[in-house]
Order: sequence, then structure tokens, then C-alpha cells
Amino acid sequence: MSYYSPTIQKLVEAFERLPSIGHKTAVRLAFHILDADEKEIEEFTGAIKNAKDNLKFCSKCYNISDTDPCQICGNVKRQPNIICVVEDVRDVVAMERTHEFKGMYHVLHGSISPMNRIGPDDIKIKELLQRIQAEKVDEVILATNPKVEGEATAIYLSKLIKPLGIKVTRIAHGIPVGGDLEYTDEITLMKALEGRREM
Amino acid sequence: MSYYSPTIQKLVEAFERLPSIGHKTAVRLAFHILDADEKEIEEFTGAIKNAKDNLKFCSKCYNISDTDPCQICGNVKRQPNIICVVEDVRDVVAMERTHEFKGMYHVLHGSISPMNRIGPDDIKIKELLQRIQAEKVDEVILATNPKVEGEATAIYLSKLIKPLGIKVTRIAHGIPVGGDLEYTDEITLMKALEGRREM
Repeated sequence: MSYYSPTIQKLVEAFERLPSIGHKTAVRLAFHILDADEKEIEEFTGAIKNAKDNLKFCSKCYNISDTDPCQICGNVKRQPNIICVVEDVRDVVAMERTHEFKGMYHVLHGSISPMNRIGPDDIKIKELLQRIQAEKVDEVILATNPKVEGEATAIYLSKLIKPLGIKVTRIAHGIPVGGDLEYTDEITLMKALEGRREM
Repeated sequence: MSYYSPTIQKLVEAFERLPSIGHKTAVRLAFHILDADEKEIEEFTGAIKNAKDNLKFCSKCYNISDTDPCQICGNVKRQPNIICVVEDVRDVVAMERTHEFKGMYHVLHGSISPMNRIGPDDIKIKELLQRIQAEKVDEVILATNPKVEGEATAIYLSKLIKPLGIKVTRIAHGIPVGGDLEYTDEITLMKALEGRREM
């Protein structure tokens, strides 16, 4: 049973439906909204509506963007012959933060996961292959997550792309910088050992 | 520098402005919004707008409500001669959860706090006094928070209301149920001792 008025209750429930928001935080957010002025509310709901109305997928790399092609695909200073394949839009941001990669991206929007009934046709693999065949691509970097699904997707992609005569690489697994050998799980440690390089 | 598109960045910032939402949660919420369908977004922004448009203060007790008078003030089954004075709208809900109190409320919307430049005129004290004089009130329960400001407000109110020949009570301080004597601070323990009752 709720002790809030129906309108407040609905607002609390609206916040509760968001990920990582529990009941207490939802109540705090709801009362923040009740205390906020008209302008603040307008900005908040405006940002949400604006995002839904204006954002689109880049028709080339399937990154989410204000423009089509996206800022990365449209940037002539970047190398068009290297494509970094990631699972999610957020991974593009993670890669960009390194300031190291100057090539293009391809966002798969998922990974092959038979457990969740996601097959190769459910993610943007067909689009990647079409792109590779249409453009002059020298290297495809597979930067899917080092989990079972990401690994399977990488293996699947490499088997499809290698026969086309294109260099296929996988990002390195190993101990995170600042990490501790003692607390590293054995699979990561094994991968770190496998990937050892001469100094 | 942001690696998100301007529209996503604005959405992330909109969430970051909410209390208890850090950058990582804001990003998670923003991407949840991007993934959500039209209907879900409509419900969410609708709940916010609806709350701002429909909620009002009860002109009697200053609780926030869909109706005026509020559901509590308008409930004829409740005792109109006992008023429980609380600082905040949320405190009404906390009291209601006990299922014990069947009287009325008065929400002060704050407490006297010279440090924050909040004096007796800045909270709903005048309105409480008018209400006491207009209605037949037998008891005023002071349920302000057991902090310096709440305590000061309770003392101030008791000095104003007692001369009117009305019984003024203060909620008990003590060890919370399930609490541990060993870990109870000395002021609470002192209050618990002061408030001891015969068994």
C-alpha cells in the first residue's frame, strides 16, 4: 500500500522503472522534481524528448549520432581502412577515450549469444561484411568484450573476414594496468602469459 | 571533453543534475532512455509533467496532495482534535506507515535554523497557530526531527502553544528497536534513560 498521493506514487514508480534506481532513490528523485522549478523540469524532460527525436544510427557504422554519417565516419582525418568492431555504442566512447585509435568503427549492437537466442543475423554482421566488401579495408580489429559471447562473436567474424584477405586482429587480454597479479583470475593470467611480448 | 554526441551529452548532464546520480549512473540512465520505446518515454515524462501540474499544497495542513483539502484532512474518520506537527511531507508518509496515528498533520516545510537564515516566519508556524485557534484542538504532537533545528523548533512551538491551554507533547527519543546499547551514542542513551517508563 502506498501512503503517497496517486500522482506522487506514479512519479516514484516512473523513477523506479529506471535501471539501478531503488525505491528510496526514486522517492528522493520524485521529491527533487516536486521541489524543482518549471525551467529545470522543462530542461530535463526536453533533454529526454530531444534525445528520442534527434538521435539516429549512423547508416555506415551504426553508432548512435546526431548526424548521419556520424562525426567519426564523416571525419576525413581518420583512417578509413581500419575498422574497429565493438558490441555497443558505449564501447566506441571507451575506445575514443584512449586517443589512440584513429580508424573507423562498426557497432554490432550485441554479440552472438545462443543462450539469449541472439544469432549472427540479429546483430550488424551482414552490414559489416557489406561494408568491408564495398570499402578498401586493410584491417579489422575485433574489440568485442572478453566474455564468452564476445569471444564467440570474434571467432565467428574472424572466420568470415580472414578469407577475404583482410588482416583480422583481436584486442589483447591481460592484467589491467595497476592490477595485482595476486588477485588476477587464472584465465586472465593465462591470457596475459599467452600474449607476452619481448621487451 | 565529451566523446558523446551533443544530444547524448545533454541527456547525460540532465540526469547528472539529479540528486544522488553520479556520472556513471547518468550514462546508464541516458542509454536506457535511448533504448526505451516511445510509450515508455511518454509515461516517464508524463509522470513528471503531471506531478508538476496536478500537485498542490493542502490549504489546511500544507501536505502535498492531488486534492485540496488533502486525503487526510478530508477523511472524516480521523480525529480532528489531534495535530501532529512534522517538518516535511515525507515525514507524513513515515508517520502514516506506523498505522498508529489517526489524527491530523501540519507540515512546517522546514525547521527553525538561524545558521541557514530560516526563522519562524519562513516556515508554516503562523498557519499552525491560526489553525489551532480556529479549530477545536486538544493536543499538538511535535514530531520534528531529533536534531538541533527540530529540537529548537519544538521548543519554540511548545512555548507558543502551551499558553493557549492545549496539551503539547513531543515524540520520544530513545534507542531504535533492534538497536544495540553498545553502539548507541551517549545523547540518545541519555534521552532513552530520561524517557524510561515503568513496566
